[in-house]
Amino acid sequence: MSRIVIAIGGNAILNPARGSPVEQQRLIDETCREIAQIIRKGYDVVLTHGNGPQIGNILAMQEECALVHPQPLDVCGAQTQGMLGYSLQQSLDNRLRESGITKQVATVLTQVVVDASSSSFTNPTKPIGIYYPESRALEMIALGIKMIHDKKGYRRVVPSPMPLQLVEEDVIKKLVSLGVIVIAAGGGGIPVIRKNGSLAGVEAVIDKDLTGSLLASAIGAETFLILTDVEKAALNYGKDNQVDLDEITVSEAERYIEEGHFGKGSMEPKILAVLRFIKSGGKTSIISSLDKALPALLGTAGTRIIA
Amino acid sequence: MSRIVIAIGGNAILNPARGSPVEQQRLIDETCREIAQIIRKGYDVVLTHGNGPQIGNILAMQEECALVHPQPLDVCGAQTQGMLGYSLQQSLDNRLRESGITKQVATVLTQVVVDASSSSFTNPTKPIGIYYPESRALEMIALGIKMIHDKKGYRRVVPSPMPLQLVEEDVIKKLVSLGVIVIAAGGGGIPVIRKNGSLAGVEAVIDKDLTGSLLASAIGAETFLILTDVEKAALNYGKDNQVDLDEITVSEAERYIEEGHFGKGSMEPKILAVLRFIKSGGKTSIISSLDKALPALLGTAGTRIIA
Repeated sequence: MSRIVIAIGGNAILNPARGSPVEQQRLIDETCREIAQIIRKGYDVVLTHGNGPQIGNILAMQEECALVHPQPLDVCGAQTQGMLGYSLQQSLDNRLRESGITKQVATVLTQVVVDASSSSFTNPTKPIGIYYPESRALEMIALGIKMIHDKKGYRRVVPSPMPLQLVEEDVIKKLVSLGVIVIAAGGGGIPVIRKNGSLAGVEAVIDKDLTGSLLASAIGAETFLILTDVEKAALNYGKDNQVDLDEITVSEAERYIEEGHFGKGSMEPKILAVLRFIKSGGKTSIISSLDKALPALLGTAGTRIIA
Repeated sequence: MSRIVIAIGGNAILNPARGSPVEQQRLIDETCREIAQIIRKGYDVVLTHGNGPQIGNILAMQEECALVHPQPLDVCGAQTQGMLGYSLQQSLDNRLRESGITKQVATVLTQVVVDASSSSFTNPTKPIGIYYPESRALEMIALGIKMIHDKKGYRRVVPSPMPLQLVEEDVIKKLVSLGVIVIAAGGGGIPVIRKNGSLAGVEAVIDKDLTGSLLASAIGAETFLILTDVEKAALNYGKDNQVDLDEITVSEAERYIEEGHFGKGSMEPKILAVLRFIKSGGKTSIISSLDKALPALLGTAGTRIIA
């Protein structure tokens, strides 16, 4: 049966500005309703998810709370795998039961080995967490915390090295072969490096779509579906002459990236992840919105990228 | 091969008073070194762990931080499964590699169905989290938060219903059958109830040793080993006439409970969990300290409880 990896955007399920746990659960429920329909069609589904706003919230709490020792970033990432894995597995289980499907769902905590020589460790550029008022940001910079300043204010930046290998790949594959619906590599995976054969966590985050493409290749998925907060990738996004894209080839996608059509921190990394999947032998990749997962797969929504 | 469930105390790996993440990792590493030796002896090991101090820290952070929406208790429990599952799986993986063992380790997020009719939902008695100064405690009580007052101060109390069923039981069994070392049901599991066939999280915590005994029975373990911060259960604990126990039968254990020998919030629930395991057909249960896991199994440390 056809295998598919579905990557759910962390921002898409929790709007940092208004996102209460109730709102997050509602969006997860809606998404899982779509995914249950995909499973009903007979696909073997593996789920992964982002964690941007969620890890940002944990960092904000740690900074404000003097009572509790802060945890390093890898451990915070592990906490978000627990939090979101639980929400997804419970919601998907409920939606499957409603549809009369008796498949099992399981979340596998996933460590991902990253490139230890990545320049992002010395020159971090990935913004995470909340915006800080200038006075607080300057204090943090004085403490050695790396920050950037954009039009909305100051944000912390952290390394975001390339994912190289899923430590729990074999376990994930075993469960998929047994027909279990696996949730894995949440938040792009818990970032680790190998030092003298041993694993060690590192203070970094990993792009969840790049890890999703690695996961999709590892389990031999035909399709890699990215669910985000827009339905289609577009040329001239947000301008008067915006053109939504229905289907593009790898070479078209590469040309559009060169021409700067895709947002640096938003659509471009998704397209890069998709290209990585297809160049590793994947067949189809689709970018669509949370509420259009099934139509995207059926070819009536989203942007499809093909070899 | 003989199966064993090992339950690691949350307090044993993080002393709430001094527990930094570094100290926690050191204790986890030491414990995993022992567990690697047990695996080397040929046992099929399933691990579970407590989360008392860790979930207490998350609650304390949520209360102090006005910026972030607090998460309900089931979600906080899921976060601790991510946090501690990650630490354990990485540490155990490293210790196994050092010992030349190539087994795989995986953490399965675990929901546990609890007794929805438990009186603990209307009359919660399980203390969790930090001690509060009186002024803050009275404010919290005025907000409807249930608190108790003991000799060290005020603490929040929450429901702690009986665990009835591991939702992910089949997945755990499948992985154990495949030779994977599974970490499951951390913190006693994420507490859920079934409502009209659907799962829903509840604001509660579950005794990790009771869930551990359920897990041990479910996977057909011969032995259920509880690792805590004392090496043996004792009669007249802490008094001049303290007698450490090497081996006791179920009926002796029941008599000692009646005579009030075991601490209500500490050793007694462990003995009750052990009794539940043996009455469900388990062969041997042992209570020992983190650093004496292997000697306990070999019969030279800990308290052994037999039918």
